[in-house]
Amino acid sequence: MQQPTIHDIARLLEASIDGSSETAISGVNKIEEAGTGEITFLSNPKYAKFVATTNAACILVSTDYSPSEIVSATLLRVSDPYSAFLQVVKLFTPEQGIEPSFRHPSSAVHETAQIHASAHVAAHVSIGKGCVISANVVLHAGVVLYDGVSIGAGTTLHANTVCYQSVSIGERCIIHGGCVIGADGFGLAEQKDGSFLKIPQIGTVTIGDDVEIGANCTIDRAAMGTTRVENGVKLDNLIHVAHNVVIGEHTAIAAQAGISGSTKIGKRNRVAGQVGFVGHISTSDDVIVYAQSGVAKSIAHKGVYFGSPAIAVVDELKQQAALKQLPELLAEVRRLKQELEILKMEISKTQE
Amino acid sequence: MQQPTIHDIARLLEASIDGSSETAISGVNKIEEAGTGEITFLSNPKYAKFVATTNAACILVSTDYSPSEIVSATLLRVSDPYSAFLQVVKLFTPEQGIEPSFRHPSSAVHETAQIHASAHVAAHVSIGKGCVISANVVLHAGVVLYDGVSIGAGTTLHANTVCYQSVSIGERCIIHGGCVIGADGFGLAEQKDGSFLKIPQIGTVTIGDDVEIGANCTIDRAAMGTTRVENGVKLDNLIHVAHNVVIGEHTAIAAQAGISGSTKIGKRNRVAGQVGFVGHISTSDDVIVYAQSGVAKSIAHKGVYFGSPAIAVVDELKQQAALKQLPELLAEVRRLKQELEILKMEISKTQE
Amino acid sequence: MQQPTIHDIARLLEASIDGSSETAISGVNKIEEAGTGEITFLSNPKYAKFVATTNAACILVSTDYSPSEIVSATLLRVSDPYSAFLQVVKLFTPEQGIEPSFRHPSSAVHETAQIHASAHVAAHVSIGKGCVISANVVLHAGVVLYDGVSIGAGTTLHANTVCYQSVSIGERCIIHGGCVIGADGFGLAEQKDGSFLKIPQIGTVTIGDDVEIGANCTIDRAAMGTTRVENGVKLDNLIHVAHNVVIGEHTAIAAQAGISGSTKIGKRNRVAGQVGFVGHISTSDDVIVYAQSGVAKSIAHKGVYFGSPAIAVVDELKQQAALKQLPELLAEVRRLKQELEILKMEISKTQE
Repeated sequence: MQQPTIHDIARLLEASIDGSSETAISGVNKIEEAGTGEITFLSNPKYAKFVATTNAACILVSTDYSPSEIVSATLLRVSDPYSAFLQVVKLFTPEQGIEPSFRHPSSAVHETAQIHASAHVAAHVSIGKGCVISANVVLHAGVVLYDGVSIGAGTTLHANTVCYQSVSIGERCIIHGGCVIGADGFGLAEQKDGSFLKIPQIGTVTIGDDVEIGANCTIDRAAMGTTRVENGVKLDNLIHVAHNVVIGEHTAIAAQAGISGSTKIGKRNRVAGQVGFVGHISTSDDVIVYAQSGVAKSIAHKGVYFGSPAIAVVDELKQQAALKQLPELLAEVRRLKQELEILKMEISKTQE
Repeated sequence: MQQPTIHDIARLLEASIDGSSETAISGVNKIEEAGTGEITFLSNPKYAKFVATTNAACILVSTDYSPSEIVSATLLRVSDPYSAFLQVVKLFTPEQGIEPSFRHPSSAVHETAQIHASAHVAAHVSIGKGCVISANVVLHAGVVLYDGVSIGAGTTLHANTVCYQSVSIGERCIIHGGCVIGADGFGLAEQKDGSFLKIPQIGTVTIGDDVEIGANCTIDRAAMGTTRVENGVKLDNLIHVAHNVVIGEHTAIAAQAGISGSTKIGKRNRVAGQVGFVGHISTSDDVIVYAQSGVAKSIAHKGVYFGSPAIAVVDELKQQAALKQLPELLAEVRRLKQELEILKMEISKTQE
Repeated sequence: MQQPTIHDIARLLEASIDGSSETAISGVNKIEEAGTGEITFLSNPKYAKFVATTNAACILVSTDYSPSEIVSATLLRVSDPYSAFLQVVKLFTPEQGIEPSFRHPSSAVHETAQIHASAHVAAHVSIGKGCVISANVVLHAGVVLYDGVSIGAGTTLHANTVCYQSVSIGERCIIHGGCVIGADGFGLAEQKDGSFLKIPQIGTVTIGDDVEIGANCTIDRAAMGTTRVENGVKLDNLIHVAHNVVIGEHTAIAAQAGISGSTKIGKRNRVAGQVGFVGHISTSDDVIVYAQSGVAKSIAHKGVYFGSPAIAVVDELKQQAALKQLPELLAEVRRLKQELEILKMEISKTQE
């Protein structure tokens, strides 16, 4: 693909141009991470602080936007920067070369499965009894769907991902390779002798629309009822979602985080990597949890949480700062104790 | 399935009924997690405290059980509540619809492999030289068995699980999707220049009977000898078991925990999520480790451990509580120091 | 295989023998972990301390090596202990029985893929458009290569590993089962309403030569540019490598560690299990990070780091030791405060 100039993009978007327009644009990126030659956008006002510092060559802004500082990037003014950016993103998204209406002869499809004519079914895909595969679905090589799985329109399952029986996935989702969705939850009843009896996991998993799930994640089916990943949720790689968990709309969770059974994560939570949640708790909407935290009880109020156990971030940072002073504090207290002893002796002399 | 009433279940179990018996039962669950309409059981006395508080509609108890508090659930009295519960569990376990004596034409089976006639071999399964597949084994789609793998009677391997050469799995096991069992351990010899020489991993992995392993776990083969997962062990998802590890009977380990090389976990350990064990240590039987702990040395005595590094839970909780007071303590010591200075001045005045 | 004696090995290596030579050797191992009957070697002087304590039956040393303590193991003197050990390692590496020049009829290979005649392509392997598979490559069952993947000579991909489009892997690598290499990075642009727009991940992944990657690892493609794993890097199982990460030559990382986006790990780093790195930082060469650490900022100097947040190991251990004394310190400060109050009263009495 030949790189379009800012001028080319402005014409496509019918945007007015503030700044130079000859620079060739190499890609799209978010405003705080964009590099030289990239185009970005400003939609959410809380990112306005990056307008002056971004390395981006070009920023899509709203028609009435006026920067509070000097901006080196070219501004393209449009009525809706977000929709405009969507158009530019498409310009830079490489063709995946996925042939529609394709069914590889090596795929094993049960006769009762309903597969839309436009779907792409790659080599060695296995589709069980009663599965429903909607329009424009892409199933990459080695995907396995047990009986009764349904996949919504426009969703892609990458290679070797597995969905157990009755799992339901919404529209326009991207499930990366090696995920296991709908395996049995970890439900055990302890016996007198310390052995375990398996609690049958007879629920299922429902994934909403516009969900993206990273590689090698595991999302367990409910013991009874449904493990739910709601619309717009984004999961990074190697995340564990236990049985009966609910993850609220537009929540994003970074790699290697784990959520224990029956925990309910609110909407628009932002969870960093390697965070763990104990079971049977819930978080409010708009909660942010920093990396490696251990969330050990419910979080009732939106805000930023950190630590293991996780507490309000200001308190955690205070503790961390105090902890650094602890070795010196121990020495200090020893000194105070000695001085106090000396004082006691002096006073007793005075009183004699 | 039409839901059976308590009365129906009592008749099946030949149980005597304490309480109302018309309620329809929707499922089985452990006593501390059971919801309205579920049936549970009491076998281990340490769970007796839940009898009064459980939401279950019905509890299987022993003939001579007498509750110490008022119980709202209906009690069904049987001679062995555990065996009775097993019968009820079967009642609620959905049929998986796995056809016995099935071999999908797309499976690739080496001519020297011995596969019991009753086994189910799904699409795109690959079975290597000299493998032995026992009665009623189920190999879901995409399972790969390298040469010399043996799978005991009644064991199920879910889709896309891989067993490297010579791995041995016992009877009645459930291995969930995406597991990799028998990959090389992480054995490296560092060279003068900082590069590594691979130590060949020529041992194997043996999994006992009645073991359940969650999705996307990795269990490495021994450098020499055997990595062993003993009878009745239950592993959650995304767990790492390194080379030469031994996990004792009836130990349960929650998701994303990791056990480093040559460590030996005792029997009936209960390990929470995201716990890490360093290598070359061992734990006693009946050890409990709380979430996100880092077990850095051997644990010689049964008990509850917590923290990173993990210590006795009472000590860890004391430290955590003390840590919360640390910022205030710093201020307090500063105040004491000032007061002491004032006192010193006053005393020197007194002495003048 | 019949076990060779020390004498047999000495003859093979043309080594001179210090000690008894009849013992049969059962395997190879690193000096600090070798067991009775094993052979090891000393090349890096920092391991010399293990010569006296190793359980190995035999140690390969350089011609001019003279031990500082009494050594019970037999010493075999050779000009280059490392190269000699390599020969011995081969002696003990079991034949994998991988047939060269093999292409299973169930494999699905695009007509434009170039596959060297000597390669082994197992059952149910899928190879996309324009892939290049070099000499002596082994692709185990269920491996999936999207379009444009290139695999260097002598590299093995174990079962069910997936490489997305345009991933490039060097020579003599071992990629264990279930890895997903080249999935989209976790690149999201937050919208006004808290939903996300996907940043297209149009970069790729390049793996160098002599790299080993453990089972079920995930290595994401770059947003733009390249995620790079350099020559000689060794990764354990279940590791997450985010988009645009660079891992320097001969770095080794233990299981379940995670590296966030755009972070650059130096050469010869040693990273223990469950460590997390935040994004957009870098580490020096020769950095060691202990288990479960959270590396929250760049590490500019070689050394050993520990804790979450990670600091110099001496400081972290001081803090951990101090933390143990904190509950007692709280009590101590309370006592000091009381004594101070008493003193104040006594002084005011004195002054009356």
